[in-house]
Amino acid sequence: MTAYADLKTRFARIAALGEASGMLHWDAAAMMPPGGAAARGEQLATLAGLGHDLLTAPEVAGQLGEAEATGASDIANLALMRRAHLRATALPTALVEAMTRANAACETVWREARAASDFARVQPALIEVVRLQREAAAALSDATGLAPFDALMDGFQPGILAADVEPVFAAYEVFLADALPRAEAIQAARPAPIPPQGPFAIAAQRALCRSLAARAGLDFDHARLDESTHPFCGGTPTDVRITTRYREDDFAQSLLGVLHETGHALYERGLPAHLARQPVGEAAGMATHESQSLIVEMQACRSDSFLRFLGPLLHETFGGDSAPYAPENLARLWRRVSRGFIRVDADELTYPAHVILRFRLERALIAGDLAVADLPGAWNEAIHAMLGITPPDDARGCLQDIHWYDGAFGYFPSYTLGAMAAAQLMRAARNASPTLDRSLAQGDMAPLIGWLRGNIHSQGSRFGFQDLLRNATGKPLDPADYTAHLTERYLTA
Amino acid sequence: MTAYADLKTRFARIAALGEASGMLHWDAAAMMPPGGAAARGEQLATLAGLGHDLLTAPEVAGQLGEAEATGASDIANLALMRRAHLRATALPTALVEAMTRANAACETVWREARAASDFARVQPALIEVVRLQREAAAALSDATGLAPFDALMDGFQPGILAADVEPVFAAYEVFLADALPRAEAIQAARPAPIPPQGPFAIAAQRALCRSLAARAGLDFDHARLDESTHPFCGGTPTDVRITTRYREDDFAQSLLGVLHETGHALYERGLPAHLARQPVGEAAGMATHESQSLIVEMQACRSDSFLRFLGPLLHETFGGDSAPYAPENLARLWRRVSRGFIRVDADELTYPAHVILRFRLERALIAGDLAVADLPGAWNEAIHAMLGITPPDDARGCLQDIHWYDGAFGYFPSYTLGAMAAAQLMRAARNASPTLDRSLAQGDMAPLIGWLRGNIHSQGSRFGFQDLLRNATGKPLDPADYTAHLTERYLTA
Repeated sequence: MTAYADLKTRFARIAALGEASGMLHWDAAAMMPPGGAAARGEQLATLAGLGHDLLTAPEVAGQLGEAEATGASDIANLALMRRAHLRATALPTALVEAMTRANAACETVWREARAASDFARVQPALIEVVRLQREAAAALSDATGLAPFDALMDGFQPGILAADVEPVFAAYEVFLADALPRAEAIQAARPAPIPPQGPFAIAAQRALCRSLAARAGLDFDHARLDESTHPFCGGTPTDVRITTRYREDDFAQSLLGVLHETGHALYERGLPAHLARQPVGEAAGMATHESQSLIVEMQACRSDSFLRFLGPLLHETFGGDSAPYAPENLARLWRRVSRGFIRVDADELTYPAHVILRFRLERALIAGDLAVADLPGAWNEAIHAMLGITPPDDARGCLQDIHWYDGAFGYFPSYTLGAMAAAQLMRAARNASPTLDRSLAQGDMAPLIGWLRGNIHSQGSRFGFQDLLRNATGKPLDPADYTAHLTERYLTA
Repeated sequence: MTAYADLKTRFARIAALGEASGMLHWDAAAMMPPGGAAARGEQLATLAGLGHDLLTAPEVAGQLGEAEATGASDIANLALMRRAHLRATALPTALVEAMTRANAACETVWREARAASDFARVQPALIEVVRLQREAAAALSDATGLAPFDALMDGFQPGILAADVEPVFAAYEVFLADALPRAEAIQAARPAPIPPQGPFAIAAQRALCRSLAARAGLDFDHARLDESTHPFCGGTPTDVRITTRYREDDFAQSLLGVLHETGHALYERGLPAHLARQPVGEAAGMATHESQSLIVEMQACRSDSFLRFLGPLLHETFGGDSAPYAPENLARLWRRVSRGFIRVDADELTYPAHVILRFRLERALIAGDLAVADLPGAWNEAIHAMLGITPPDDARGCLQDIHWYDGAFGYFPSYTLGAMAAAQLMRAARNASPTLDRSLAQGDMAPLIGWLRGNIHSQGSRFGFQDLLRNATGKPLDPADYTAHLTERYLTA
């Protein structure tokens, strides 16, 4: 066997271990009785350790040096193997283990601290997490030649660095300062939305979510929809597991959540099957993944076109007064702009503000320019500067998200890059398929999903974020498509 | 670290891989959409391969030679490590892979062959399976010093060989020849059982099964009850997964099935937690495992005592006429003796006949004394000799069980050894706790389960099958306790 063939076998085993872990994570969230948690931790740690051992085994460096690949796909695959090996070997085992322990310990304390809105309680644990992240960033920086924070960002969305994000975010801040009051004024001049009256039977919600996910193209011979406290998309490309949670008094949260996760799931389902379990066959980073969930949830399903289809279906499903289900009312209800404290509840217009402030704070924490102790104050200043509001407590401020407390620094930009990419892809899809909105108005997502399958899903990781966009839309990330989308949706009286 | 400490770490990783596989097997049976099957195969093969690599790594032989253990538990643990290593290294990797492929291929064809009752269709695949099993038996024989078929049996119930089983089975055959017609005559003289009239709502059956499993001691903080085509007990000791299947026209199948699986589950739950993921902390073989399911299902739950509790509960659950739920009627219904073709439907009296004939045939196949082509004829002769019936087709004959077609030779004796051990343990438990039947009549299984926990569950694999029985009952396996149980239950007018 050639060195490259050996490496392909090795990476397929690593990927199979990752798939097994993915399933066990899903099970832990959706199925596992509480008493299984400790053993599950052992199982996952063992699988992660064995995967790391396979990736960093002594013979791999030589094989990677020796390996030769021909053809674009294999050349990209080999480059991704080298990248994975470089990042995995950059961190000493002792540091990886210390991070695993510190992150797990901090996350546990964070749950209590958030519940009590008591930042001081988690401060020592977060100081340790940040200290280790800075060590890791330095080690990754040495290995990759990237700046330390860039080296962390690169772990979530390969190739996207702080210098790419900074000007985009600065421009958005300017746009928002003007757009937000205008959107609010326009909104205030319109009739107030009428909320549908519950209760909404869970069984009906479940059937609705399932049928809309199927309508969007999710094939339940290769997917499941279950329940968990925190909705997510997990599993593997041929066996995707999405979750949601249901509330009797509100169907929108589960419905729109399922459509969001369906976007993620369709991406996984559309990855190139002939490249399964090879790095080049995987999804192309977190921002790309988020673009696929948001194009389904935000761009397609909250569009005027789709709401014309969805409104009558909802009324038929839940009965009662028809007024709340009028498409215009659903649009006012589900596209409501508000200056809120909580990122995950934010609208499309203000969401980037939440991301921008986190990006700046996490960067300052890793650079050592911001002490953990000063985080609550810096947070509150930042959100006040952008949205003019001050969190009444840290639970609604710097304690709200799990990311940092779980050791994820450099992830947040992916949300907004994904939202922007979704707008850009939607524009290109509309250009490619002039009847796309007519299809959406009939509840037919096939033209959109078909276009995404060809241009994004089936590409795997053959291209990075910018080249994927360039190939699909003719240009790299262009935030103007996002602001144009927002202008049309929120700033047009 | 000492060699023994290194080995403990290694075996804990191997066990964690096994736990992960167990969960993925459960998922495949109870949750997985059909499209996930191929990827699941890759995941399981990778985990099995990595586990095998860990067990057979070059340094292990040296560590096992060097390792020293003190204290009964560690001495037993080290011996079990040596045994596992010996068996794993005995088989060349190429043979293991060939068996895996041949078994999987044969099992697939067997499903069609059974459905069509067409032995010829699966004959070539079974010939290959048997050929490889004979190779494996020879290799294991060389390594262990056991006879070839004994080396296969030893893989399912360590320490129990054909010479242990043969006289037990021969004696049972003599007992049965006399007992069966007598039991039939006694049964014929009694009123015919009145079957409860359905339909029995699945939701009510589900709740009943759950509550009876909980009553038997299963803690659902550490367990789940789900559905699958073939009921089983899987998962891990702190997260046991049992399954059943429900039919609207019959509640007994799921109810008694769940009680059977609960017996398995309680054994796993009661294994010594401080020895988790070490060989000595595992269950002590398949016959021991079966004794724990059968003591709950057959000995306890079909006893006159427990039926006095269960009858009224069933009537309360399902309503309707009370006569079918009278304890005496349930006894006549659920302890009905009949000469049937199907092992899994057999009663306690005739079940061993099904096992005895399989044991003799599989032994002859492995010895080369019986050709695969002659299996259907040999089967039909054997069952006619013991039960006086002739299968109308091979689906009800030699095609009925998956075991051989999946490469499991030497497993069948465990069923009957387990049934016999269950009777012996029940007698000892009654002696130890004279109020045990009074408790059962109140639906209280705690005295029985508590006794099993102390004498069997908590012992892990510290002792083999015979020593476990000796410690718990004062003697090794004594089939007289089983025939005494059968005599009391079936031969007393």
